[in-house]
Amino acid sequence: MEKYVYDFAEGNREMLDLLGGKGANLAEMTNLGLPVPAGFTITTRACRAFLATGQVPGSLGAEVDDHLHRLESTMGKVLGDADDPLLVSVRSGARFSMPGMMDTVLDIGLNDVSVVGLAKQAGDERFAWDSYRRLVQMFAKTVLGVEGAYFEKALAALKDDRRARTDLDLTVDDLKQLVTTYKQIVRRETGAEFPTEPREQLDAAILGVFRSWNGERARVYRRQERIPEDLGTAVTVVSMVFGNLNLSSGTGVAFTRDPASGSPGVYGDYLQDAQGEDVVAGIRNTLPLQELEHLNPQAYRQLLDVMSTLEHHYRDLCDIEFTIENGKLWMLQTRVGKRTAAAAFRIASQLVDEGVISLDEALGRVSGAGLAELMFPRFDTTAAPPALAHGMGASPGAAVGKAVFDSPSAAEWAARGEDVVLVRTETNPDDLPGMVAARGILTRRGGKTSHAAVVARGMGKTCVVAAQELRVDTAHKRFTAPDGTVVAEGDLISIDGKTGAVYKGRVPVVDSPLVRFFDGTFDAASADTETRDLVSAVERLLRHADARRRMSVRANADMPADAHRARAFGAEGIGLCRTEHMFLGERRRLVENLILAHDDQERQAALDALLPLQRSDFAAILSEMDGLPVTIRLIDPPLHEFLPDFTELSVRAAVAKATGQRDEEAERLLPAVRRLHEANPMLGLRGVRLCLAVPGLVELQVRAIAEAAAEAMKAGHHPLVEVMVPVVAAVQELEHVRETAERVLDEVAAETGTHLEKVVGTMIELPRACMTAGQIASAADFFSFGTNDLTQTTWGFSRDDCEASFFPQYMEMGIFGKSPFETLDRDGVGALVRMAAATARTAKPGIELGVCGEHGGDPESIHFFNQIGLDYVSCSPFRVPVARLEAGRAALPEAVAGSVSASR
Amino acid sequence: MEKYVYDFAEGNREMLDLLGGKGANLAEMTNLGLPVPAGFTITTRACRAFLATGQVPGSLGAEVDDHLHRLESTMGKVLGDADDPLLVSVRSGARFSMPGMMDTVLDIGLNDVSVVGLAKQAGDERFAWDSYRRLVQMFAKTVLGVEGAYFEKALAALKDDRRARTDLDLTVDDLKQLVTTYKQIVRRETGAEFPTEPREQLDAAILGVFRSWNGERARVYRRQERIPEDLGTAVTVVSMVFGNLNLSSGTGVAFTRDPASGSPGVYGDYLQDAQGEDVVAGIRNTLPLQELEHLNPQAYRQLLDVMSTLEHHYRDLCDIEFTIENGKLWMLQTRVGKRTAAAAFRIASQLVDEGVISLDEALGRVSGAGLAELMFPRFDTTAAPPALAHGMGASPGAAVGKAVFDSPSAAEWAARGEDVVLVRTETNPDDLPGMVAARGILTRRGGKTSHAAVVARGMGKTCVVAAQELRVDTAHKRFTAPDGTVVAEGDLISIDGKTGAVYKGRVPVVDSPLVRFFDGTFDAASADTETRDLVSAVERLLRHADARRRMSVRANADMPADAHRARAFGAEGIGLCRTEHMFLGERRRLVENLILAHDDQERQAALDALLPLQRSDFAAILSEMDGLPVTIRLIDPPLHEFLPDFTELSVRAAVAKATGQRDEEAERLLPAVRRLHEANPMLGLRGVRLCLAVPGLVELQVRAIAEAAAEAMKAGHHPLVEVMVPVVAAVQELEHVRETAERVLDEVAAETGTHLEKVVGTMIELPRACMTAGQIASAADFFSFGTNDLTQTTWGFSRDDCEASFFPQYMEMGIFGKSPFETLDRDGVGALVRMAAATARTAKPGIELGVCGEHGGDPESIHFFNQIGLDYVSCSPFRVPVARLEAGRAALPEAVAGSVSASR
Repeated sequence: MEKYVYDFAEGNREMLDLLGGKGANLAEMTNLGLPVPAGFTITTRACRAFLATGQVPGSLGAEVDDHLHRLESTMGKVLGDADDPLLVSVRSGARFSMPGMMDTVLDIGLNDVSVVGLAKQAGDERFAWDSYRRLVQMFAKTVLGVEGAYFEKALAALKDDRRARTDLDLTVDDLKQLVTTYKQIVRRETGAEFPTEPREQLDAAILGVFRSWNGERARVYRRQERIPEDLGTAVTVVSMVFGNLNLSSGTGVAFTRDPASGSPGVYGDYLQDAQGEDVVAGIRNTLPLQELEHLNPQAYRQLLDVMSTLEHHYRDLCDIEFTIENGKLWMLQTRVGKRTAAAAFRIASQLVDEGVISLDEALGRVSGAGLAELMFPRFDTTAAPPALAHGMGASPGAAVGKAVFDSPSAAEWAARGEDVVLVRTETNPDDLPGMVAARGILTRRGGKTSHAAVVARGMGKTCVVAAQELRVDTAHKRFTAPDGTVVAEGDLISIDGKTGAVYKGRVPVVDSPLVRFFDGTFDAASADTETRDLVSAVERLLRHADARRRMSVRANADMPADAHRARAFGAEGIGLCRTEHMFLGERRRLVENLILAHDDQERQAALDALLPLQRSDFAAILSEMDGLPVTIRLIDPPLHEFLPDFTELSVRAAVAKATGQRDEEAERLLPAVRRLHEANPMLGLRGVRLCLAVPGLVELQVRAIAEAAAEAMKAGHHPLVEVMVPVVAAVQELEHVRETAERVLDEVAAETGTHLEKVVGTMIELPRACMTAGQIASAADFFSFGTNDLTQTTWGFSRDDCEASFFPQYMEMGIFGKSPFETLDRDGVGALVRMAAATARTAKPGIELGVCGEHGGDPESIHFFNQIGLDYVSCSPFRVPVARLEAGRAALPEAVAGSVSASR
Repeated sequence: MEKYVYDFAEGNREMLDLLGGKGANLAEMTNLGLPVPAGFTITTRACRAFLATGQVPGSLGAEVDDHLHRLESTMGKVLGDADDPLLVSVRSGARFSMPGMMDTVLDIGLNDVSVVGLAKQAGDERFAWDSYRRLVQMFAKTVLGVEGAYFEKALAALKDDRRARTDLDLTVDDLKQLVTTYKQIVRRETGAEFPTEPREQLDAAILGVFRSWNGERARVYRRQERIPEDLGTAVTVVSMVFGNLNLSSGTGVAFTRDPASGSPGVYGDYLQDAQGEDVVAGIRNTLPLQELEHLNPQAYRQLLDVMSTLEHHYRDLCDIEFTIENGKLWMLQTRVGKRTAAAAFRIASQLVDEGVISLDEALGRVSGAGLAELMFPRFDTTAAPPALAHGMGASPGAAVGKAVFDSPSAAEWAARGEDVVLVRTETNPDDLPGMVAARGILTRRGGKTSHAAVVARGMGKTCVVAAQELRVDTAHKRFTAPDGTVVAEGDLISIDGKTGAVYKGRVPVVDSPLVRFFDGTFDAASADTETRDLVSAVERLLRHADARRRMSVRANADMPADAHRARAFGAEGIGLCRTEHMFLGERRRLVENLILAHDDQERQAALDALLPLQRSDFAAILSEMDGLPVTIRLIDPPLHEFLPDFTELSVRAAVAKATGQRDEEAERLLPAVRRLHEANPMLGLRGVRLCLAVPGLVELQVRAIAEAAAEAMKAGHHPLVEVMVPVVAAVQELEHVRETAERVLDEVAAETGTHLEKVVGTMIELPRACMTAGQIASAADFFSFGTNDLTQTTWGFSRDDCEASFFPQYMEMGIFGKSPFETLDRDGVGALVRMAAATARTAKPGIELGVCGEHGGDPESIHFFNQIGLDYVSCSPFRVPVARLEAGRAALPEAVAGSVSASR
């Protein structure tokens, strides 16, 4: 028969799946001999059985009986006993912590009889009745589902009546009356009495935890985080200890190192004569943990010992919850502690120095996401005024600008050169132009998946949402902070997309020291210890990642300055050099000539004029990347992108005609723009199709590349150029371009007397290219997966059209947890990439396989690319260190990798 | 050692791959004891070896020696002998016949010496020298690659000089001089002498055939037809026999039945004292074959015997080429003969009646393409004037309209209700609006893959291209026919997209008798025998196909009238009922209200107004299809499709503003149109995304469906409704809609007291849906592959934007042979469909799988769908008989299926 209940002594921390995080760690501490109150854990399998059948397993009741009796005999008390009652807390504990799950019911076992026993034992009647009224309230709310506001109102009414300022001003009699009132509320709302039988309370609380697994919020969260639906939650039942008995009691939380800065030394808060609840409620100020040394030296020393034991045992920063009851220390919870990104790097490096963990393990404990966060510019908070409000940081960065309150104003102000921050109650697709124009976005409502948050992340804009303390008055174009400060249109504000802080005025922005370090402008001598320490920890772990990783890391860079930075940031080549921008600006006119050419001669003249310009563009990039591979993509976008917008031009032409004026440009361009207009440009004449359709275009680009390379070789450099053909769907397309490219390379080689390698490959960015990868490989020296476009065609939605329209709703509905444009969708797009990589390798062993979509810089996606055996990832220069780190983490040995995931 | 040369007696017709069509059939006839001139065939493997290495296999020369000696001893003559020369012809013969391949060199073995021997033997000096001059010309042109015009010019000059009207007016001396002139041309153009050594002529001709395999035209043709590049061609070497010796000689072609009508009885042409060349040149009129009975009764009877032998042996219509030399019959070629679609059906049915073939074999010998052709309306040619010209039929149908000569005029005339035929020299993308507006398109230039042809086929418009005899003068808006007839703008013309004929005036159009038959309006009594016979052959073979096929056939139909016709044509349900049109016309205003609704109440009011209208739509369709499944697709297109075009509206609004007028509609709608405007609507808010985004939309449609079904049930009918969700990419999307749909179905069932089946499935039209088919299957009762959209996303091109822009070029370049929107692309799209079908079946055995893209009516695609195990295809009502026939053919047993392909 299956065992559904484990005493703490029967478990350990490996049993996470069965006992949940809380239960497994309590078991671990118990077996370490640490002072843990006695208790037991009901397994996730019991929960799963209940959820599947609506019935608890038949044997569960007897098992709980058994373990409860053992608990009673260990503690020498009986649950709900009239004289000296055992009380217990019931808590949920799943494999992953999860918002929306039922948290805790304390003081189970109290009723009209046992409350008297508790008062007697504690020598404190007030304490006992306050515990009782808390039980009724907590139980009713979390187990019975009664609206919490009823209890809050009743409490407030009583306090009013008694003219009490705080709960502490209420008398024992007041509390007794409150218990009566609370029970009436329960009766009214549920049609049943509050259960006074202790065992009945316990069983109901256990079922309450089970049921909360399927609460709406928990389900949405799981869908979003892709946590399996069928894990279930465990339930821990622990003997109550009381930190609120007297001044020799108290409760606290502590960390074995500073989780904010990563500095060594314990760190925490302590509150005398209090329960955990009170710490959270924040009614009284907590003391720094160190004060405990004076209040209770013995408990303090014991606590330090425990913390040292835990850190050595877990080999990592631990956080703990503890309670001191009448001078005696009890451990209520521990886990490997959360920490800031900076702390993660510093602690990992410290633990290596201390000989606790290996460099591999240290690498496993930091993350690319953390590194990226550390590289963002940030506000110099020493120079900042107090924040007006705190929202939720939804898209990182530090934005400063004038507040504007609607989209048209944002666009208008931005058009005249102002930096603006768009402030809205919440955003919707109509706000898109304003969001594009703004430096940052601030909303009063919303969450991490609201429209503003999703769109801002997609655009890489700073965004703060859920700044609920602000009163936003869009009609009068202003908002009001809790302190009464009014910010009107045009007032400068600063928002911090990481912390969610909102400031009035301009807060100075400082570069990340890491970026200065990569750029070679970091001055270690003038930096403080923490910063120096952080920089050296990051450098050390990046170096280790470089040594470990199998994939190389390249950058997407179109301009020499980007290439320069990419190289400084550690890029080992350029994986995507787009040539589109080379046709913009003052060269637009040449492209117009190309498009409007009436005959071959005019077209050739336009191409000839572009040749020297392109050649010098390429020469500059090759010079920056001397000795490293540079993958140059032939022109990709449809021609009309180089001409004015069709609607705009139509309006101009029509208005000119209607008003009898002339608009020569509109007249000249409209016919061509109309001819080139496409209903779906993303699915139109672009990429290789364009290369094949416009005679001379491939020749122009390949000749410019070849001449630039030949020039560099003659100057003694080592250019390594790869020609990349975009939007290939069929091998025949690539064959045609390859034929032309090889011919031109041969011609230039002959003309210049140089030896030019003929490396020609293709983007794989269409599902058909994936399905026929074996055929395409026969004509390609390399594949570079263009996962942005591949995501668009695989899902059949375009980023521009959809990210701002229905993605927020899709995330709310749990259709996907993250935008597939941010993190590669493994099941769909990833399956295509995996298949294509395998087929290509079979058809042409040794073919070079990389990725140059934005996913190349996304940690989770990088792990996937490593797993399927790609040779390199290419990402924006700024993400290169992130990619190096994650490529290293992805390559860690199996034994370490067990605890490594991209999102840690 | 490999054998590279086979005497005719050593081969047979199964050796097609090795000996090519010609060689295999000559061998077969030889072994049947028919009078075939002696000869041998050099294998395709010899050709392949030559193409691979540039060298003929080392042993080939000796083998040819050997077989040539045998040939000489059989014929009792020696190649190029001075007294009685053996002459041979050299011909190519690949597995598939192929334009651009070198055809024939006759009279090899002639030189200045042997020509005298030939003259002596034939007793005809003129004949001998004419043969010699033909050899020089043919050899120089096809083997040496000398421009043919030089010889034609030299001949014309000599005729001018001699004032000769025809070649026959030239004397022997003239011909001798011509040989000298021709040899000079060869020397001038090739820098070498015409080879006079017979064996050198033979070897050069063999290599010429080998090389012609890689000629440009042949390569493009193979790419387009997907014929493998590496098959190679065989070479047949045959002793010459002469039909042009005297009046007891002659040459002819014959068919064992009439290949045009399919009527029984032999059929052919004969030309006295002539060679095959002369028949092709058309200088003299041929005689009906039957005349041969009077000219040479013995040869005629022998010919009839041979034809009977061949038809019984090949068990099919044969065509033959024969020559009579001095009264003796020689067979030069035979093959299973090409025939018209009508003949195919009639002959297949006759052969069944005659006990020659089985019904299965008969079904294998007809085709859906042929049936489709027979179902088009056609001109009543008995009522037609003589054609002005003949072009190439590029897209079938019979179009009548007023000639217009540019795209704007076509659009303008059509807008005022005129039927027009657009006449152009050739078309390009600028002509698209005119092509859309026209009933038919006529071009002077182009071919089957030119812009006009490809676009017209895509749009289902009648099109004739390559009407080269017409002089099209677009500047003056007229064209001139060879007979001087001038057709000006506005004159009525008629064009036949099948035959390529162009007529002046209106030619009456008649419905196909087959369509009348399916519609139940065919009057057998008043029809002629041929027509009656055709209708009964088609019916018989369709009935057999129905008995054979595994897949069922449904129709795509949105309106009751379409559903009615579909059922008459044999549809077994509706596989795709689109609901979009139900929101058009007068209901646009209701959709506007829905889109412009300011709050839930307004939106609900708009939905409520649509409900009864939708319900009655569905009721009408269900009534037509009572007892058969009807798959109704929820609304698919993006909302802006129901509003005016963004550019148009922007222009209206801007012009109104600029001129100080008001345009209330533009003002009212522009904000919504702007909000809903998408850069790529095909990749935007549509399908299931729209269903999830607009509250109440799914409820509205499902309720309308459910109420219509409940109503029908109450009236004693048997509605079988399936709800289909479009554009699903992730199972979660389907789950959400399914939940709503099931709830509404339950509600309506409860309200109406009926039992409604809850059949909910999805279109599979995105690559991601294919890749995650296993997951999606868990929430779907059926899949219907939407191969149009799937083709768009898999290839990353939209039909609207690309078919008219670069498809023609892609076909010319051999990137694809047929538009992937016409015939399913097996390697890419097909591979996805195959994978999805297999995965879905594994995840949910018995899930119903069908296809509702246009490929559902395409013969080649139907075979593929059958092969991968789909349950049904759904196509336009008109294609239903085609699909029935091809689904039957696809299911034929292996033994028959060997000779069956969709394209026969």
